[in-house]
Amino acid sequence: MSGFVSFVSSGPGDPELLTLKAVDRLRRADAVLYDDLSAGPILEHARAGADLVGVGKRAGRPSPRQDHVSRLLVDYARTGARVVRLKSGDAGIFGRLEEELTALRAAGIDHEVIPGVTAASAAAAAAGIPLTRRQTARRLQFVTGHDVTGALPEGLNMAALADPGAITALYMGRRTFAGLAERLIAVGLPADTPALLAEGVSTPAERLSRHSLAGLAADQSAPGDAPALILFGPLAEED
Amino acid sequence: MSGFVSFVSSGPGDPELLTLKAVDRLRRADAVLYDDLSAGPILEHARAGADLVGVGKRAGRPSPRQDHVSRLLVDYARTGARVVRLKSGDAGIFGRLEEELTALRAAGIDHEVIPGVTAASAAAAAAGIPLTRRQTARRLQFVTGHDVTGALPEGLNMAALADPGAITALYMGRRTFAGLAERLIAVGLPADTPALLAEGVSTPAERLSRHSLAGLAADQSAPGDAPALILFGPLAEED
Repeated sequence: MSGFVSFVSSGPGDPELLTLKAVDRLRRADAVLYDDLSAGPILEHARAGADLVGVGKRAGRPSPRQDHVSRLLVDYARTGARVVRLKSGDAGIFGRLEEELTALRAAGIDHEVIPGVTAASAAAAAAGIPLTRRQTARRLQFVTGHDVTGALPEGLNMAALADPGAITALYMGRRTFAGLAERLIAVGLPADTPALLAEGVSTPAERLSRHSLAGLAADQSAPGDAPALILFGPLAEED
Repeated sequence: MSGFVSFVSSGPGDPELLTLKAVDRLRRADAVLYDDLSAGPILEHARAGADLVGVGKRAGRPSPRQDHVSRLLVDYARTGARVVRLKSGDAGIFGRLEEELTALRAAGIDHEVIPGVTAASAAAAAAGIPLTRRQTARRLQFVTGHDVTGALPEGLNMAALADPGAITALYMGRRTFAGLAERLIAVGLPADTPALLAEGVSTPAERLSRHSLAGLAADQSAPGDAPALILFGPLAEED
């Protein structure tokens, strides 16, 4: 008896930014394994009686190891359950999806991936700006600002990131931004390149602020608890 | 009397990949201006009696000029209507959003942008692979394979695109891919770099195929009518 796992992208936080398919899978799930970021009202789509299991990482609290999450997923599926593995944003973008897919394949458990709205799309939409621009921003790139240790990942392609013709979406990069910006300016990205800090995008905690690259790097205000995404590059003017 | 315009991202094609917010805006719209790609079952969410106006571009047929679309949008809103401007994928990614936003601002018409699922996320989900990988694909980048004339855009950053540590999603690039691949191989991207051709992603016409960069460039099979997205880079193995 082998169950089925749906990796469900929960979007940036606003429960209205779930897809119809995500809602369907939540309604039919016997168990939902969720990250803290995607909890709350989104879980209300699960049926009464479904197991709701928090497996997310949260700053200041020990987080379950990735291999533990994968094992839990396999164990739930092996009971024959319909399992939803809820992942914030789009599951395929900085979502540690591969480790869990690999575990399911090794265990021979059927699965599917439901794509969703990634935070960069939600941040740009909230600001009323596009992520690509015909003449000035023909390339859009996504990087993460922290590796498993919380530091800026090694081996980032600084030339690609310093391209003045690209818009970059930096995920989870508030704490490492000053160091990244310094390196980008050193290789030629203008210090006055526009930057947008988007915190808690699409949630009641949403806060958007415009800066320059150097200005945001120098900003000493305490970061909020909400997850942050930074867009920088030739951003369009907002309303 | 001034109406309101919702730019609504319709996702990659599957009507189940609409967000709840997109469905809500469609249901409440007095008029829906849609592109061909996003038509069909998605429009069934509009109420009976809503004006449904096709303004999309379609190969082999003269397409409405962008400034005509913007003017139509303004004219509809000025009747006091609730207008939905439906855009395929995520409206902010290669969606010509900026031109229409600018026209609305100039006319003083209130508006909002509803983000959605972009084709790259849907293609990766359909293939069961992630778009980013912890060690090997730390950067994800999106480019379009054609400018307004249908040719490969000028000024693409070939070094950034030839980075073996990045996954690239090429939108609307089937026809220009051979030329792009040749240039990427010339600047050092290995000819055997994995590539995934995703046609009609998330629709009944969906067809996924795995290639090498050089193999896909050399492929002479006739492209289908469905829109195509190409992923290349250090792609994970599929099921």
